[in-house]
Amino acid sequence: MKVTLDKAEKIIAAAKKKAAEIDTKMNIAVVDEGANLVAFVRMDGAWLGSKDIAIKKAKTARYFDMDSGEIGKLSQPGGALFNIEHSNNGLITFPGGVIIKNSDGEVLGAVGVSGSTVENDHEVANAGAKAFS
Amino acid sequence: MKVTLDKAEKIIAAAKKKAAEIDTKMNIAVVDEGANLVAFVRMDGAWLGSKDIAIKKAKTARYFDMDSGEIGKLSQPGGALFNIEHSNNGLITFPGGVIIKNSDGEVLGAVGVSGSTVENDHEVANAGAKAFS
Amino acid sequence: MKVTLDKAEKIIAAAKKKAAEIDTKMNIAVVDEGANLVAFVRMDGAWLGSKDIAIKKAKTARYFDMDSGEIGKLSQPGGALFNIEHSNNGLITFPGGVIIKNSDGEVLGAVGVSGSTVENDHEVANAGAKAFS
Amino acid sequence: MKVTLDKAEKIIAAAKKKAAEIDTKMNIAVVDEGANLVAFVRMDGAWLGSKDIAIKKAKTARYFDMDSGEIGKLSQPGGALFNIEHSNNGLITFPGGVIIKNSDGEVLGAVGVSGSTVENDHEVANAGAKAFS
Repeated sequence: MKVTLDKAEKIIAAAKKKAAEIDTKMNIAVVDEGANLVAFVRMDGAWLGSKDIAIKKAKTARYFDMDSGEIGKLSQPGGALFNIEHSNNGLITFPGGVIIKNSDGEVLGAVGVSGSTVENDHEVANAGAKAFS
Repeated sequence: MKVTLDKAEKIIAAAKKKAAEIDTKMNIAVVDEGANLVAFVRMDGAWLGSKDIAIKKAKTARYFDMDSGEIGKLSQPGGALFNIEHSNNGLITFPGGVIIKNSDGEVLGAVGVSGSTVENDHEVANAGAKAFS
Repeated sequence: MKVTLDKAEKIIAAAKKKAAEIDTKMNIAVVDEGANLVAFVRMDGAWLGSKDIAIKKAKTARYFDMDSGEIGKLSQPGGALFNIEHSNNGLITFPGGVIIKNSDGEVLGAVGVSGSTVENDHEVANAGAKAFS
Repeated sequence: MKVTLDKAEKIIAAAKKKAAEIDTKMNIAVVDEGANLVAFVRMDGAWLGSKDIAIKKAKTARYFDMDSGEIGKLSQPGGALFNIEHSNNGLITFPGGVIIKNSDGEVLGAVGVSGSTVENDHEVANAGAKAFS
């Protein structure tokens, strides 16, 4: 089971639906097992700067097989992974990047969302990730 | 009239249809008036390296308001624009980037396609651009 | 209504006037709706390193449709957007980037100023943004 | 004698005048003795991708104290400076970058212009450089 384009489009459709429900305008990115971009959309009026952030959140989540916000807890001053954001041409380590798993718990890719508060970003990314099956 | 997400999705659907018809696997990118990415898809099995090329072709076309291949004719050794590819964090100047115009001829964005021969890339991009209306 | 060169020059003239009034030497940048540079000036004796900062402040403001300093409040250690500066080839998130709006509140571009204290930078950028009409 | 902002603005005004006379839309950049940007304008409707090219042409000219097109003659395949464009984060070595000299022939900066044919770009840059005195 892979993050095919067909599945990525389902993920994006679910994320867009959630984004509309909570009245936000999002940038949404989906990456596969190789952390390579499969699909991306910028909703009308969404922040231009969130395009790069959505993609980086998705990559960050897949790079370390955990939601982006988990890494952010460790990258704070004094933390074990302080300033890890300097690696990989730039990580984004606050919430909004959510891993995509199969039923065995294997990580197959990730969704990255940016355009609102980090809570909303995470909620929308989560709605996307849940549409994978 | 703008390259909204709705229109970008129609462009991508038309490009995907043409890609399937000619039995190719493509990366397809759409940028708006500001040369900012609106939507992107990588078809299953399409070359990983073509992701960046599709995006750069779309940007290149919008940067100079002409199809990417037109610039490539001028950027050859001895040509007027030799090595222009070093600008703008990297241009791609062979065919596959096609401008999107309104009925007045104003350039509103561009489509970039990569994944096959440049002739096929251009044909698929063109099919996408024609779906804009 | 767009940030044409004519309007950008009015913005820069107003910003330069304010900079002179408060006895500072500034780098001043104006970007349009697509976050693309329209005009830039470096006043005599202004810091060389502020050139890139002024441009990045303007882009940052337009990328997120808010003044650059607003983002800086959230990107501190422990903040919701910690290290967001790693995105978009580098953001500058302290004050001095001010959005340009039309009378309907739509963001059409931004001004970025760097060369003095962040308070002065913001004041000069603000004087520039107010000259847009 | 230096390329002050006042002089850079005169250079840009002269270049804009020439650009209008020959019915072109240009990006125009002026750099000083240190190859640092002093002023930049993008005329309405000028190519977005020419922004970076205008700045790189001006820098290229000042980096080597000769018009950008002179370097392009040497950077061709088989030439002495083949692919020199890879240095300095990207050079542009076709015409449109013109050095600014004082009456003793000392190079004090450069003008870079992009937005039309290289002949037009050079003509406009030259008109700008001649306004320096």
